[in-house]
Amino acid sequence: MAKSPEEQHPVKAFGWAARDTSGVLSPFKFSRRETGEKDVRFKVLYCGICHSDLHHVKNDWGASKYPMVPGHEIVGVVTDVGSKVTKFKVGDKVGVGCMVGSCRSCVECKNDLENYCPKKVLTYDFYYHDGTMLYGGYSDHMVADEHFVLRWPDNLPLDAGAPLLCAGITTYSPLIYFELNKPGLHLGVVGLGGLGHIAVKLAKAFGAKVTVISTSPSKGKEAIENLGADAFLVSRDPDQMKAAMGTMDGILDTVSAVHPLLPLLSLLKNHGKLVMLGAPAKPLELPVMPLLMGRKIVGGSNIGGLKETQEMLDFCAKHNIKADVEVIPIDYVNTAMERLEKADVKYRFVIEVGNTLKAA
Amino acid sequence: MAKSPEEQHPVKAFGWAARDTSGVLSPFKFSRRETGEKDVRFKVLYCGICHSDLHHVKNDWGASKYPMVPGHEIVGVVTDVGSKVTKFKVGDKVGVGCMVGSCRSCVECKNDLENYCPKKVLTYDFYYHDGTMLYGGYSDHMVADEHFVLRWPDNLPLDAGAPLLCAGITTYSPLIYFELNKPGLHLGVVGLGGLGHIAVKLAKAFGAKVTVISTSPSKGKEAIENLGADAFLVSRDPDQMKAAMGTMDGILDTVSAVHPLLPLLSLLKNHGKLVMLGAPAKPLELPVMPLLMGRKIVGGSNIGGLKETQEMLDFCAKHNIKADVEVIPIDYVNTAMERLEKADVKYRFVIEVGNTLKAA
Repeated sequence: MAKSPEEQHPVKAFGWAARDTSGVLSPFKFSRRETGEKDVRFKVLYCGICHSDLHHVKNDWGASKYPMVPGHEIVGVVTDVGSKVTKFKVGDKVGVGCMVGSCRSCVECKNDLENYCPKKVLTYDFYYHDGTMLYGGYSDHMVADEHFVLRWPDNLPLDAGAPLLCAGITTYSPLIYFELNKPGLHLGVVGLGGLGHIAVKLAKAFGAKVTVISTSPSKGKEAIENLGADAFLVSRDPDQMKAAMGTMDGILDTVSAVHPLLPLLSLLKNHGKLVMLGAPAKPLELPVMPLLMGRKIVGGSNIGGLKETQEMLDFCAKHNIKADVEVIPIDYVNTAMERLEKADVKYRFVIEVGNTLKAA
Repeated sequence: MAKSPEEQHPVKAFGWAARDTSGVLSPFKFSRRETGEKDVRFKVLYCGICHSDLHHVKNDWGASKYPMVPGHEIVGVVTDVGSKVTKFKVGDKVGVGCMVGSCRSCVECKNDLENYCPKKVLTYDFYYHDGTMLYGGYSDHMVADEHFVLRWPDNLPLDAGAPLLCAGITTYSPLIYFELNKPGLHLGVVGLGGLGHIAVKLAKAFGAKVTVISTSPSKGKEAIENLGADAFLVSRDPDQMKAAMGTMDGILDTVSAVHPLLPLLSLLKNHGKLVMLGAPAKPLELPVMPLLMGRKIVGGSNIGGLKETQEMLDFCAKHNIKADVEVIPIDYVNTAMERLEKADVKYRFVIEVGNTLKAA
């Protein structure tokens, strides 16, 4: 007879879990594996609420498994390390992002692109190599192979830094890969949410002129005064969009609703790059002529590898980049999910797990 | 009163022109400008029939101007040069492709990318800097600024080389720009027409494994035995397409009909590049998730600059690459257009202008 998760995983754990597609979270007792030779165990102090957590708990993508403990923007302090761990010691501040495993042998893994490994293991709502269910960071502690654990820079705040583990690397990686990190470029950022507001800060730190493009005129003041954007375009205003045609070297598009690409392609200079970071549920309409006539590209990118994620954290620490967050107690999480669904947050909820999660 | 074209352009010329949207071509007397200081005048010996000639003569793109002398794959021998011409002398073999002018001062022109200059001047069905109409290569002679004239390599045949001036550079330039010219890559070529058959030869010369992807199973033997492709995929065969998933580094898509992109994106490895060279009249459906999950791109490319076009001709001469052509007399041109519309040519008609065009 197969062992139950509790038998396989003898370390008691506690968190909040969604039990079904209602997505309502409630306290949940479970277990985690023993500290393996290469494992790092850490007490969770903060965990960001990513928009994808909402999709997962509500089964929007059709593959959710319950009970589910969400959370992949996890920061804490090491409490135990395996005998062969070399990178960390008890007391270190660490983070875990969207991944906790990969094959470690394919060409992607060898190139530090574990995020594109066909066998990558996501942090929660996913089965680990041993076939047991993985639970995320809305919980008292985590355990993960040290390869998938990030060193937390000293001067990076734990709360406002946590969202960098997903939103930060998701926007940093394409800026590097698509060579949009050169000083003096003009970059557009479409959508001003969790991803978009970090994208603005990163692009500014790389020395770009940054224009935020949004359907909501109300976001203009905020984008410029609080986030440091240089300009703001209302995408529904044809005159504004026309005046900005052919001015941008690259655009990070963080919108996951179906939306037209032609106006964005038109904003690009020749040889410009439109990088999709959100995944609309339906195909978008792609006009091909602008790609040909301006040698433009439409690309995509999905988080980043562990090496690059560490570089991103160090870059953010150096440049004082952090998320704008609303720190909440764990028992506010269901309200936070409701508000997130209405985009009523500037710009990321972060759960103060360490101080507010109490075992029943 | 404005001068008539004949007054502005004192040199008598003769060719075949379309007179209206029927697209039927017939003999036409016109004139060309005097040889300017930087101009090269040459007797036309051969001119390829590009598929875009068909679109132009039939006004498929809605901006045709009549009478129209088509032709932008033009090869001949120099008969006269202006006083400041440095690159050519009488008797030289030369070519003119899709462009005869650009602003020469913008960033694109300074980077040898005249093809992306916003003021580029196309070879026919277009107005020159002086406001007069330009006529193409279905004619007895041409005159063009030496910057837009190519040196014809000695060992490149005039007839089978002519299509390289459009089909060659259109496929060569993206292989370079998108870094698909490294030996050992696996490249796909979608569509086996004028562009596609040259793309296969170029990709092979760069050291790629080449797979032709087509809706027509009948093209498989030809692709492999005559063009040197390594493999052939019938795009309508789901089993064949599935077996080839994730195997290609890049794909050149030469199809200008509306067609699905998802099967092509699926053929790409992670970080693969789908480059569009045909321009469907309607937007294509772009599924975004494959772009994100595999960091893939969809790009486009449009001919190439003069420097690169010369490099391409020299590369083709060196590697013995030429088009597969059916050489025809000028009075076969209307039949050729009808056959081209039915894709009944392997793979390019070339008009033997020098020996068959006779003034009435």
